[in-house]
Amino acid sequence: MIHASIVTIGDEILIGQVLDTNSQQLARALEETGVHVVRMVSIGDDGEEIAQTLLQELQRSQLVFCTGGLGPTKDDITKAVLARISGSKGYKKHEGQMEKVIEILHGRGLDVLPCNENQAMVPEKADVIVNQLGTAPIMVFRNMPGTLYSLPGVPHEAVGAIPAILDDVKAHQPLSQILHRNIMVYGLAESALSEKLAPWEDHLPADMHLAYLPNPLTGIRLRLSCYGTASGDEVQRMEAELSRLKALLGPLMYADEDSDLETALGRIARENGLTLSCAESCTGGMIAHMITSVPGSSGYFLGSVTSYAIAVKEKVLGVPGEVIEKNGVVSSEVAAAMAEGVRRLTGSDYAVSTTGLAGPSGDEFNPVGTVWIGVAGPRGSKTVKYVYKNDRKRNIERFAASALNFLRLFILEDLNR
Amino acid sequence: MIHASIVTIGDEILIGQVLDTNSQQLARALEETGVHVVRMVSIGDDGEEIAQTLLQELQRSQLVFCTGGLGPTKDDITKAVLARISGSKGYKKHEGQMEKVIEILHGRGLDVLPCNENQAMVPEKADVIVNQLGTAPIMVFRNMPGTLYSLPGVPHEAVGAIPAILDDVKAHQPLSQILHRNIMVYGLAESALSEKLAPWEDHLPADMHLAYLPNPLTGIRLRLSCYGTASGDEVQRMEAELSRLKALLGPLMYADEDSDLETALGRIARENGLTLSCAESCTGGMIAHMITSVPGSSGYFLGSVTSYAIAVKEKVLGVPGEVIEKNGVVSSEVAAAMAEGVRRLTGSDYAVSTTGLAGPSGDEFNPVGTVWIGVAGPRGSKTVKYVYKNDRKRNIERFAASALNFLRLFILEDLNR
Repeated sequence: MIHASIVTIGDEILIGQVLDTNSQQLARALEETGVHVVRMVSIGDDGEEIAQTLLQELQRSQLVFCTGGLGPTKDDITKAVLARISGSKGYKKHEGQMEKVIEILHGRGLDVLPCNENQAMVPEKADVIVNQLGTAPIMVFRNMPGTLYSLPGVPHEAVGAIPAILDDVKAHQPLSQILHRNIMVYGLAESALSEKLAPWEDHLPADMHLAYLPNPLTGIRLRLSCYGTASGDEVQRMEAELSRLKALLGPLMYADEDSDLETALGRIARENGLTLSCAESCTGGMIAHMITSVPGSSGYFLGSVTSYAIAVKEKVLGVPGEVIEKNGVVSSEVAAAMAEGVRRLTGSDYAVSTTGLAGPSGDEFNPVGTVWIGVAGPRGSKTVKYVYKNDRKRNIERFAASALNFLRLFILEDLNR
Repeated sequence: MIHASIVTIGDEILIGQVLDTNSQQLARALEETGVHVVRMVSIGDDGEEIAQTLLQELQRSQLVFCTGGLGPTKDDITKAVLARISGSKGYKKHEGQMEKVIEILHGRGLDVLPCNENQAMVPEKADVIVNQLGTAPIMVFRNMPGTLYSLPGVPHEAVGAIPAILDDVKAHQPLSQILHRNIMVYGLAESALSEKLAPWEDHLPADMHLAYLPNPLTGIRLRLSCYGTASGDEVQRMEAELSRLKALLGPLMYADEDSDLETALGRIARENGLTLSCAESCTGGMIAHMITSVPGSSGYFLGSVTSYAIAVKEKVLGVPGEVIEKNGVVSSEVAAAMAEGVRRLTGSDYAVSTTGLAGPSGDEFNPVGTVWIGVAGPRGSKTVKYVYKNDRKRNIERFAASALNFLRLFILEDLNR
């Protein structure tokens, strides 16, 4: 197994100003490629410390990835350290990166300054992978005890460079091929799901493994991996196991690739020519925000009403005052009336609604964390109640994700009739 | 200066499943206490690796904080390692933590199992800080080359333990007292702000320092720190500098403590008895989501309409069809009509609106990243246009934050008349 270390350079991480998301993204990609990350280290912008840490990690791991410390300003001393520890005698200009530097600066209406030209200079012993998204090149040093990759620190540049880096790793390392397939599941806790899948999981071939990767907003990502590549029939055997898994999951599965609920719901709407809307109380706009975070959502999402005030529920959504008075605001009846109301108002095919108590305080009838979710469509409406036990922020997230999933199931029921 | 290392234990971080937010929170708190974090390390659940890493960091730094590896399951071997490297002969039961274990499990309707009882057992040489939020105690080992703190890995428990840990650090370390004050600013880029403040900043007393801490959703946090404590008049001298800073900033400042735009806007609304609403197109619900993320927002936020479809803009918000036709959907006129429309619909004192193109594609009239923001109030309406150059997700965030700030300034103008 190939081992890797990730080294992050930058004072801004050590003082807690910036969260290190690069290491997570890189670690996840490496792990799925069959490279085992054994250590992550964050250090400051100190030349001696950078040199010592990189050399130490090159003793520990065959692959070392360092991110950060490559900007055009004087704080960034990483490149000089890389030249020194790689035994480079001098620098060379990389024409491909220089073209990119010019293209990017001109695109921003800026002149090319000497400090920008320096960015296309790399230590003599470096191979270069052109950074398509920024001015600092990605450098590879193969003449070390292991191989050292240097990435820019800007998150979208670092993450954007991952595919090219993985290609380089695969081309140079004796990696055993690993197959991965993802299945997205929503609606069961990890423990309940694992109990449900145990009989199947226990009979998985010895070269296959199932991982549970939970996330509050997207549910559980199930990742089936196949580590055996000798027989040549791995793809077929994976497909056979995936079919069994999908049959066991039924509608709990919302995507058979890495995805999220809003994308899955959007696909159902788009593929079936359906329009959506929502009426939110306790989720306060988060459902609409999630739905519209998907590019192209303007093709099927008509709009939403956040009715925080009771008067808005009555006047805009047309929820009858006596329904609120009789059942309380947090009730099945109000959830149903809100969904029906916004469906009528926007003319959408389907609608979803929420009314509940995200916190910090409950009311005389319901504890904090209670939510009623309503859905409405051409065949009528339906509601469900959940009680979560989290803080306000997390409750809002759980309410919104549950609402998207409830709407998804409601539409699928109609489509499968 | 006291140096610290933070060591995170857990395979879930190394495979990229979980983002390490604990280290950031802890680093920020330590830095503001005057402890300098020199290294963060993440390692797996391997006993030998844990022991070696902790001993190495104890050579490097006077304070070492390790998080994770303390759950009730067998994966968690950290406590045995801590016993070994601290030279503990055995374990002792901590009654205070045991009471907390019983209280927490009973609160969840669970019985106390032997593995839970074990959680209140600590190595003989450990001092204990009771974990008020979970079953695993916080342990302090003072008999090492430096001092080793062991925290649980569950984020809300780790973050919840920070104040008690800082108290312990302050009680045992010769820290020079540092004073910090935060000022929140929105509406200027870091470079422009730094130019504006340069004349004042250049004349700061030698023992004071200003840090710029930018964040896309909250703007720039300015942190003024005073490191001198000899003269005894630091608080007054800080106040004098803060007054000068505030005068320079004017309405660019939205809070004189660590805060965010939605909280600042909420405070203005609450203190002046004003109600708010919003009409969102390109922000798709995010403004409402931000406003309602503040506890107590139901006291001043009436509701919102997300009008993704033109028909919803016309029918629900009452934007005249000819205004859209004449000016285009992304226009000053439509932004104003949307804000006025939702203000009329909800009966709120003030309203804010957005119409723009978050991406991925622009239209024939406007590039991606264009937004018109409208505000409406008792004295009429006003609009502003911004063009940002980010991806869809980031554009939506910038649009929403800018809209909250524009509404804040609009209300302040009226209040200051």
